[in-house]
Amino acid sequence: MGRVVLLLEKLNWRYAAKKLDPARPVPADAVDRIVEAIRLAPTSSGLQPFDIIVVSNPALKEQIRAVGYNQPQITEGSHLLVFAVWDDYTPARINQMFDLVNSERGFTNEGWEKYRAQLLKTYGARDAEANFQHAARQAYIGLGIGVTAAAFEGVDATPMEGFQPDKLDAILGLRERGLRSVLIMPLGYRDEAGDWAAKLKKVRRAPADFVTSVV
Amino acid sequence: MGRVVLLLEKLNWRYAAKKLDPARPVPADAVDRIVEAIRLAPTSSGLQPFDIIVVSNPALKEQIRAVGYNQPQITEGSHLLVFAVWDDYTPARINQMFDLVNSERGFTNEGWEKYRAQLLKTYGARDAEANFQHAARQAYIGLGIGVTAAAFEGVDATPMEGFQPDKLDAILGLRERGLRSVLIMPLGYRDEAGDWAAKLKKVRRAPADFVTSVV
Repeated sequence: MGRVVLLLEKLNWRYAAKKLDPARPVPADAVDRIVEAIRLAPTSSGLQPFDIIVVSNPALKEQIRAVGYNQPQITEGSHLLVFAVWDDYTPARINQMFDLVNSERGFTNEGWEKYRAQLLKTYGARDAEANFQHAARQAYIGLGIGVTAAAFEGVDATPMEGFQPDKLDAILGLRERGLRSVLIMPLGYRDEAGDWAAKLKKVRRAPADFVTSVV
Repeated sequence: MGRVVLLLEKLNWRYAAKKLDPARPVPADAVDRIVEAIRLAPTSSGLQPFDIIVVSNPALKEQIRAVGYNQPQITEGSHLLVFAVWDDYTPARINQMFDLVNSERGFTNEGWEKYRAQLLKTYGARDAEANFQHAARQAYIGLGIGVTAAAFEGVDATPMEGFQPDKLDAILGLRERGLRSVLIMPLGYRDEAGDWAAKLKKVRRAPADFVTSVV
């Protein structure tokens, strides 16, 4: 019980920092643990239809900032996570995941193979854009877990949808890999003195407005 | 640092339970804390464009199971969370959130008011479906945090996209409230003996496949 209270504390501690301290890089092992949490995120049918690109190269972060409406956290943070989503659910990708599961678990299963066939049919019947839109939603699950993991690590993370995805894809060569950028998230440490947002009260819709109980 | 390891442990403990124990209801205070975590989830511009409906009524859960491909966890779990997304970003909704922020923080701010005007323009120029699709993604952030909170609480949560949203909307009267169901999540306790999936190894893409570092 106390542990969930800890989680709530961490969620209350975090906010979308507007200014990060460029003099305080996030240690590599902390970045690894945040990415590991994202890797463990549940996704639809367990397909994990996105990659994480971790950009720490300063010149590259500058280029990304230029296609990210000049948001300073992109370069102030020591690491930038890019959520790069599958442009389609292809048979190769679906089969790779099912094969991985069989290989890791050491057996095959009739029900599981039927499920594979069903997914191949369902995704195969939809166009790439519809599949991409579905895959993009899964990346947001990872984002939710990623901001939580960062908070547990005492690291600030500022999720961003505001950037030019086509240009970011070109900078990182994502389209050639069948990926499309959907979200970016700088990691760093808040500059409390320099961030106008650091001391603002966190505002959420009241529970009575947000939640309806049907008993 | 130890605390993030705890988070990773919780993420490894959780799985999408295929069978919940109907004899073990989740205490109301645990449900409240899970929903509270979801309420604290970050969303685009802080608009929180979704509601949570908590269904514990047995007859209603039966009805929902019937439009949820008969997935048993829907009735086995004591509580069913429904993520009900705004059907549009309307001026009234956007203004309500900006007004709430001003009221909670006790001041107005020119930059913030400019941002309000910009969002009213951006969302106003897009059709309801595009706005709904954007809002739906935000609910997945809440889902990521919700499954994490449940794991901290020792509660099993099985996220589901597989149901007939139009029929669920009708059952819960969501459309009249300008809401559309996007995700459901039963809460309960795994039936370890009865769930074929309970002992299966969790499989994720290897870190080397999932993560690319650009140093």
